[in-house]
Amino acid sequence: MENEFIIKGNFYYCDEKRELVEKTGSYCIVRDGISEGLFDRIPKEYAGLPVRDYSAFLIIPGLIDLHTHAPQYTFRGLGMDMELLDWLNTYTFPEECKYSSLKYADSAYDIFVRALKNSYTTRAVIFGTIHAPATLLLMEKLERTGLITQVGKVNMDRNAPAYYVETTEKSICETEAFLKSAQKYLRTKPILTPRFIPSCSDKLLAGLGEIQQRTRLCVQSHLSENRSEIEWVRELCPDAAFYGDAYDRYGLFGNNCRTIMAHCVSSGDEETERMAHNGVFVAHCPASNMNLSSGAAPVRRYLERGIRVGLGTDVAAGSSLSVASEMVSAVQASKMRWRYVSQDKPLSLEDVFYMATRGGGEFFGQVGSFEKGFEFDALVIDDSGAESALKFNDRDRFLRSVYLEKECRLEAKYVRGSEIRLGA
Amino acid sequence: MENEFIIKGNFYYCDEKRELVEKTGSYCIVRDGISEGLFDRIPKEYAGLPVRDYSAFLIIPGLIDLHTHAPQYTFRGLGMDMELLDWLNTYTFPEECKYSSLKYADSAYDIFVRALKNSYTTRAVIFGTIHAPATLLLMEKLERTGLITQVGKVNMDRNAPAYYVETTEKSICETEAFLKSAQKYLRTKPILTPRFIPSCSDKLLAGLGEIQQRTRLCVQSHLSENRSEIEWVRELCPDAAFYGDAYDRYGLFGNNCRTIMAHCVSSGDEETERMAHNGVFVAHCPASNMNLSSGAAPVRRYLERGIRVGLGTDVAAGSSLSVASEMVSAVQASKMRWRYVSQDKPLSLEDVFYMATRGGGEFFGQVGSFEKGFEFDALVIDDSGAESALKFNDRDRFLRSVYLEKECRLEAKYVRGSEIRLGA
Repeated sequence: MENEFIIKGNFYYCDEKRELVEKTGSYCIVRDGISEGLFDRIPKEYAGLPVRDYSAFLIIPGLIDLHTHAPQYTFRGLGMDMELLDWLNTYTFPEECKYSSLKYADSAYDIFVRALKNSYTTRAVIFGTIHAPATLLLMEKLERTGLITQVGKVNMDRNAPAYYVETTEKSICETEAFLKSAQKYLRTKPILTPRFIPSCSDKLLAGLGEIQQRTRLCVQSHLSENRSEIEWVRELCPDAAFYGDAYDRYGLFGNNCRTIMAHCVSSGDEETERMAHNGVFVAHCPASNMNLSSGAAPVRRYLERGIRVGLGTDVAAGSSLSVASEMVSAVQASKMRWRYVSQDKPLSLEDVFYMATRGGGEFFGQVGSFEKGFEFDALVIDDSGAESALKFNDRDRFLRSVYLEKECRLEAKYVRGSEIRLGA
Repeated sequence: MENEFIIKGNFYYCDEKRELVEKTGSYCIVRDGISEGLFDRIPKEYAGLPVRDYSAFLIIPGLIDLHTHAPQYTFRGLGMDMELLDWLNTYTFPEECKYSSLKYADSAYDIFVRALKNSYTTRAVIFGTIHAPATLLLMEKLERTGLITQVGKVNMDRNAPAYYVETTEKSICETEAFLKSAQKYLRTKPILTPRFIPSCSDKLLAGLGEIQQRTRLCVQSHLSENRSEIEWVRELCPDAAFYGDAYDRYGLFGNNCRTIMAHCVSSGDEETERMAHNGVFVAHCPASNMNLSSGAAPVRRYLERGIRVGLGTDVAAGSSLSVASEMVSAVQASKMRWRYVSQDKPLSLEDVFYMATRGGGEFFGQVGSFEKGFEFDALVIDDSGAESALKFNDRDRFLRSVYLEKECRLEAKYVRGSEIRLGA
């Protein structure tokens, strides 16, 4: 009985054409974590099920964060005065190094995990550090929240400071140990995580490619984020046709390997074609890309090419875990791109809502909608704090709940049909 | 005694060179609303004064909002799918028209004023609607908060829908009546407010120029925001050398008339020179400019030319009253401009902190610092909600309080030495 119930309320989601669907006063039948679809009335065969009535609220699919760095949550809001490579050396590597201490990891990850649990995010794909023990501790904490995540122990064996680098052998060996220990979780899965090409030797990539072949695990990394980084990759990998090719040569770029590439701000035509062909997921991180002066990714072009795009908060280059705020930034960045770079139509709120739900959700399977067969991830949003003298129609209430997220409150949050216990 | 006290705490402000000054564990002597300066110890002559101890918190000057539209607060977060001119006709004019009803104005302005009172803003320059009674009601409510503001009854006699336009005569006549009634407030002053050139005939501008000469009131309007608007002004005013010249011909563009021009996204060299020469204040509204696809104003160029620049939230093209969030947007927009438009150095957090405090504060006089002689406007910020495993130095605590404003809490707020009663 616990596994079957009915949620009543005002539902909003995107259909596969990226159009907003509003179903107010509807009923969603949830069985074993899966939606049986939305109904105007309770169908006879479900008449006895308990009804949770959220009529006063808005219900949207849980938001998906395709790219964020858990260890960097400690210094969010700092270091916004540099571009990528300097930022990594000045702020990021010294901080990530601290997670060699499990004591530090314990206190830092407590704060990160609590913030993620209480956010609009239901599923996330997360970078840890190079340390397997700290990353397993992070997974342990995430597992207890009820959220569904994939978490990576980071691999890096070159071009990093001596205090924060692995030998190739140790990197592979610790990854194997990490994967073995990480098998015990239900909702928290490991993901292969080469940091980015500058940090990974060919030998390391080959080793990770071999592990991927054997385990069929997913892969996450960074791609074509910042000009100086791209130039550096060109020098480091003269044989690669383009940045993404340097991953693809080792089987770490889509195809039979489910892959997320963060950023893709400056991917050229060849790289774009390869992403489309290989089914690579792009994690679009617009706030981070503005903060590090990287630019605005050509998302319209990716969507039109049929590339799968989700959103990422990219803490700490992004300063918050809010995917809703990332939706707003994505629209803004696309308008700046339209104004100054190309005539591609700016992203609409429907486009970014799609990306934040179904777009990123597809990485996890049938996720990001209330249609029949989708896993039931839902946010029940109390928008009464976003005061106005106006009475809004349903679509406008939804729009406001995105732009005015900070004035709204999460009444309840479900992941795969289970309610998350919000708060401390 | 009430008028003399000491504030103890960790102070942050910008000096006139736009450099951040930190004075932790310091004492600010406040007499009759004015700072006597910051001291490491309490000077002997002030030894008997009561001390308010905010040692656990951060203290920064109150933030200044040089440009926002009170009647538009009702629909913040909506209508982000259009550029300026369509947005005005579709969303803005129909909404502003409703303020012909004092009942509507009463309920809408209650919400706006409460939000402003509880925000980081201590002083603001505000557009009302064309309706004198509603705008006076807004002033009445603002006066009770203790904030210091200037508020304008909007003038518009052409190129507006029939339901929301005035005759030239009525516009002038109602302005005179408005100014007369508005004299009674201590902290809430009227400001002349021609909407923008497309809405104001030459005759109306001449009339307002005449009133300005007589009253020495300040002026606020919009300038060079959006491409289609600028093109339209060129058609409407073939004799004006540039957009701003159309104001200047009627004495409404600086010089002996203290003037704020919002936006200035696309001001050319001639217009920039005139702004510098006339001492016009630019209200930079970066979030609004991104939301309406206008672009990013060349703020670095303005600062280097010695033009006075403050920040504006521009609700409802901006979706919140947060000047701190505008600081973040200003840095981001300048980075996008650096990446795609020109090699002007992006704005630093010091630059935007200056603009949010002293830059905008100068419009009100000696405002925006804790140096001797400045009016004591202060925010006491509790940053303990912005959790982290790290211990931060004082500068970093300050930076975080800007980027993570939503995780912080206002412990107290002072305007000209008086504490504001926060809450409902």
